[in-house]
Amino acid sequence: MASDGQAPIEAPVLPLSKYSKRVLLKMILGRSDGGLGLMGQKVVVGGWVKSSREFRMAPEVVEPKESCLETKLTFFQSILIVFIGEHRGRDKLDAILPKPPQRSISILQVGDGSCASNLQVIVESYLAPPSEVMPTGTCILAEGLLQKPSLQGKGTIELKAEKILHIGLVEMDSYPLSKKSLPLELLRDSAHFRPRTTTVASVMRIRSALTQAIHAFFQENGFFHVQVPIITTTDCEGLGKNFQVTTLLDEEKLEDQTIVEDVRLENIKASIKEKSEKVEELKRSPSNKEALAAAIQDLKKASDLVSHLEAKQKAKSGKSAKVDFSEDFFSCKTYLTASGRLHLESFASALGNVYSFGPRFNATKSNSKKLLAEMWILDLEMAFSQLEDSMECASDFLKFICKWMLENCEEDLKFVAKRIDKLVVHRLRLIATDSFEKISYTEAVEVLKQITERKFEKEVQWGSPFGEEHESYLTDEIYKKPLIIYNHPKELAPFYVHLNDDGKTAAAFDVIVPKVGSLIRGGQNEERLNILSTRIEELGLEKQQYEWYLDLRRHGAVRSSGFSFFFDPLILYATGLNDARDAVPFPRSFGKANN
Amino acid sequence: MASDGQAPIEAPVLPLSKYSKRVLLKMILGRSDGGLGLMGQKVVVGGWVKSSREFRMAPEVVEPKESCLETKLTFFQSILIVFIGEHRGRDKLDAILPKPPQRSISILQVGDGSCASNLQVIVESYLAPPSEVMPTGTCILAEGLLQKPSLQGKGTIELKAEKILHIGLVEMDSYPLSKKSLPLELLRDSAHFRPRTTTVASVMRIRSALTQAIHAFFQENGFFHVQVPIITTTDCEGLGKNFQVTTLLDEEKLEDQTIVEDVRLENIKASIKEKSEKVEELKRSPSNKEALAAAIQDLKKASDLVSHLEAKQKAKSGKSAKVDFSEDFFSCKTYLTASGRLHLESFASALGNVYSFGPRFNATKSNSKKLLAEMWILDLEMAFSQLEDSMECASDFLKFICKWMLENCEEDLKFVAKRIDKLVVHRLRLIATDSFEKISYTEAVEVLKQITERKFEKEVQWGSPFGEEHESYLTDEIYKKPLIIYNHPKELAPFYVHLNDDGKTAAAFDVIVPKVGSLIRGGQNEERLNILSTRIEELGLEKQQYEWYLDLRRHGAVRSSGFSFFFDPLILYATGLNDARDAVPFPRSFGKANN
Repeated sequence: MASDGQAPIEAPVLPLSKYSKRVLLKMILGRSDGGLGLMGQKVVVGGWVKSSREFRMAPEVVEPKESCLETKLTFFQSILIVFIGEHRGRDKLDAILPKPPQRSISILQVGDGSCASNLQVIVESYLAPPSEVMPTGTCILAEGLLQKPSLQGKGTIELKAEKILHIGLVEMDSYPLSKKSLPLELLRDSAHFRPRTTTVASVMRIRSALTQAIHAFFQENGFFHVQVPIITTTDCEGLGKNFQVTTLLDEEKLEDQTIVEDVRLENIKASIKEKSEKVEELKRSPSNKEALAAAIQDLKKASDLVSHLEAKQKAKSGKSAKVDFSEDFFSCKTYLTASGRLHLESFASALGNVYSFGPRFNATKSNSKKLLAEMWILDLEMAFSQLEDSMECASDFLKFICKWMLENCEEDLKFVAKRIDKLVVHRLRLIATDSFEKISYTEAVEVLKQITERKFEKEVQWGSPFGEEHESYLTDEIYKKPLIIYNHPKELAPFYVHLNDDGKTAAAFDVIVPKVGSLIRGGQNEERLNILSTRIEELGLEKQQYEWYLDLRRHGAVRSSGFSFFFDPLILYATGLNDARDAVPFPRSFGKANN
Repeated sequence: MASDGQAPIEAPVLPLSKYSKRVLLKMILGRSDGGLGLMGQKVVVGGWVKSSREFRMAPEVVEPKESCLETKLTFFQSILIVFIGEHRGRDKLDAILPKPPQRSISILQVGDGSCASNLQVIVESYLAPPSEVMPTGTCILAEGLLQKPSLQGKGTIELKAEKILHIGLVEMDSYPLSKKSLPLELLRDSAHFRPRTTTVASVMRIRSALTQAIHAFFQENGFFHVQVPIITTTDCEGLGKNFQVTTLLDEEKLEDQTIVEDVRLENIKASIKEKSEKVEELKRSPSNKEALAAAIQDLKKASDLVSHLEAKQKAKSGKSAKVDFSEDFFSCKTYLTASGRLHLESFASALGNVYSFGPRFNATKSNSKKLLAEMWILDLEMAFSQLEDSMECASDFLKFICKWMLENCEEDLKFVAKRIDKLVVHRLRLIATDSFEKISYTEAVEVLKQITERKFEKEVQWGSPFGEEHESYLTDEIYKKPLIIYNHPKELAPFYVHLNDDGKTAAAFDVIVPKVGSLIRGGQNEERLNILSTRIEELGLEKQQYEWYLDLRRHGAVRSSGFSFFFDPLILYATGLNDARDAVPFPRSFGKANN
């Protein structure tokens, strides 16, 4: 390995990053000795400049070196000119030649995204002018020697560049990250650049580790992965709003305008149900009279509109028109899926234990910082299982993935603990090692009713959903650990949850954790055809949509249970971030979708 | 472990399936001894009846047993009646009591989806009437003893049921799978039931293994997983049609009808470009005169429509109207993503090597059996890499996942080899162990031009894309192994592929394999801002959409390369199926979306 007359070096050979002929910084900086054992090795590294400073050489020190260099260069130059012609030779050299008065050393902190730490790279100005390599964000690929930090270097090792193989310049005026430490809110407008910040990069690596952990858990436990459909005709929850998927607006054959009118009528009709429910709900809480009046007016307005539109349509066509979705791409109305559980259940009723990890959508115009319009959710279903089984699986699953993060993301967790929230490791250990508290909804109501030292904004009442304030009081203050609340009032559970024998509660459960609240929602599925049918009717859902799902009860029904795990909130839990938009590569939330 | 006076059994304890208190059939039937070593163990198994037959006991054999049972039951019955009242006691007993003339044994082949094999389960009629347990599709959970096959049993072991814990009945008239071996085409209409067929179940388990293999490869090689957005404002390929995502049609505030007219106008304008190109293309192949005439007429029709609509709009509003997508959910026009590579590149320009596995969409009205409207694709991008690197990564990746399938799906591959295509294992070995042939596009053209023994429908010509006939001739007939074709004419490559120095070709590549053709498309990305801008303009793409992508060249540009891997075609390759609709859990193709 000796070259250029150097003494042979007995250092371990560094593995090259496959497919890019460079050494990942993690292989150097992630060693227990911080890279010390690699001293003297020649390596190629690449990355982006995170910060830099310039060290100007004092003229007296530089002079002799410089003149020596000049001599060399002039000699080299004359050779070049002989070989490739004076003009081109001079041009090339002008680009790499240092301007004599600017002789200096650029001291760069370079990160390549493989780990949170940066490597100090020393670039003398004869290799590349400081104006080119020093701006934050510059991409650099350099070959050089690993050595003890010269000058006032950070870290235990630095790279002294010998060749600059690539420079990706930065237009400093327009580069959004050139300013120091932008707040996360501002970074959202530069989703395509922000993973170059150390914080966002750490979060994204933790996301990746969590993705791997999810698949590892299910592989270890013999589950099969199923790609449930994203485009669906079935509204899984029957709650919330859905995005519509269409090519109808893209069709030339859209020969008249009635379609929008028809869709509009249909949707207003649907919204009337929602509005009536809101009125009923507000009637029950007599304090909120203004809201009730507004809701009643809202309902009336929608009803009037329906009458008006129907009259108009009748007048036009002589009959009440229907939107012709048979003209759409799939010959029917389609949505983006809100949950994979119904489809997954069909596979559980054949393969046993199955899971699906993928994007799910919700078009509700909310300002939730936890759940965005597009989010990745893990759905799972298990045949021959009941409520108890899915609760056990949920806690095993959370323990496994949190342990995985603790074991595989040490450096990034340390970094986010320093930069965002010092409690992150403590919180992950809480899930990984503590047992989960398990109480019924009814018990939780009792516990909360006995609280006197804290006044809740909304009083706790059997039958109402817990608010964030209640959930966080239970998990943060009372139990101080993850909490499973089960057997919710049936009115609060999705239509497909198994009705308990008491006739009042359903076999649903939530896993609530400190800081972010609910991470998992699940339960046992209703296997009895008649009860399931009745529930669909009670909720006024469009029964036709669910016929295939009811089929699973008609033919070879199995007792099954499952849950949905919300990926993004766990990232908030594990990083200390407060807003999912900072934890998702390209966030999609109401009113905003860049790129 | 001895119970009921039996001799203690020295058999290994079978691990229960976590979360469902039963033993997976794989744990019994997947053993190298076929389950023999488990003889005498008491287990609970659950699954669905795949086929069944009845064994009627001869009266002389049955008589004594039956009368003995009768006595027991009568005694039990009288106790029950005392405890729970005569009426209910009789009712319950009527349900479980065998009708004396029907004494028989049901011999069921039960599968639970954990493996391709079935377990023979023996259910005497006093446990459950044959009419309930015998129909194909019945769900059964049974406790019993593992024993040597009695009667004319299949397999090396069977379960003699002692308790029936659950029966999920089948309505035979309407159960679609009750008939023997439906063809795959017919099964498509029952996507929610078809994984209960042994063939589809095997395919779905192979899918799951492949999903695991993908993540395993990238975890081993230090790639980070990035969830690229599904809803996007950027049209990655600038080719094909996209699905639009909207809540506009769901809005009450849609106060007038102009929107559809406006969208329509915009889309027709866009289609004119496409139509003009088609005319140009057809002009180049003089043979196809009829198609040319039709294309010209099509173009004229669209142009006329634009004039007509614009005139109408002007007349109405006095100005040319624009669709107000600021009213849509994301305040702009959004699509379902066709590819994750552009977004992924932004993460590669920060984290190094990244991949994304998720759903991608294409609204082209095609009848492709290989690529559906919704499909899962693996996209990857690597910083500091070039064409060579991505080709190397692509072949390593394919080798790894095919090896994984060979090692982890032995039983399912054996089954599909028997049922669908005996060449599947051979084909997987072809990728896993053979080296890939690597030729440039230009070389491939030369090779094909020299072919005399075969007449192609479309003549090979430098500059035209290869058709299926050419690809399959190269890989199936000439090289008889996987083939990488690189350096395609720039006109055939997406806009973001690196232009080669010859000015004619781009650094793109395809991996072509026997049977299914192209499995991977990739290449080196164009890192030069000016060339990339020019390409976007040349292709008439909407430049505004790509400004963020161009930003990656303005600030710290890195040389990078990557590819997209098509998941479903590899499933066809590995199973012998010919239509992706049979290989996808809930297929979405033009004109059809159930569930």
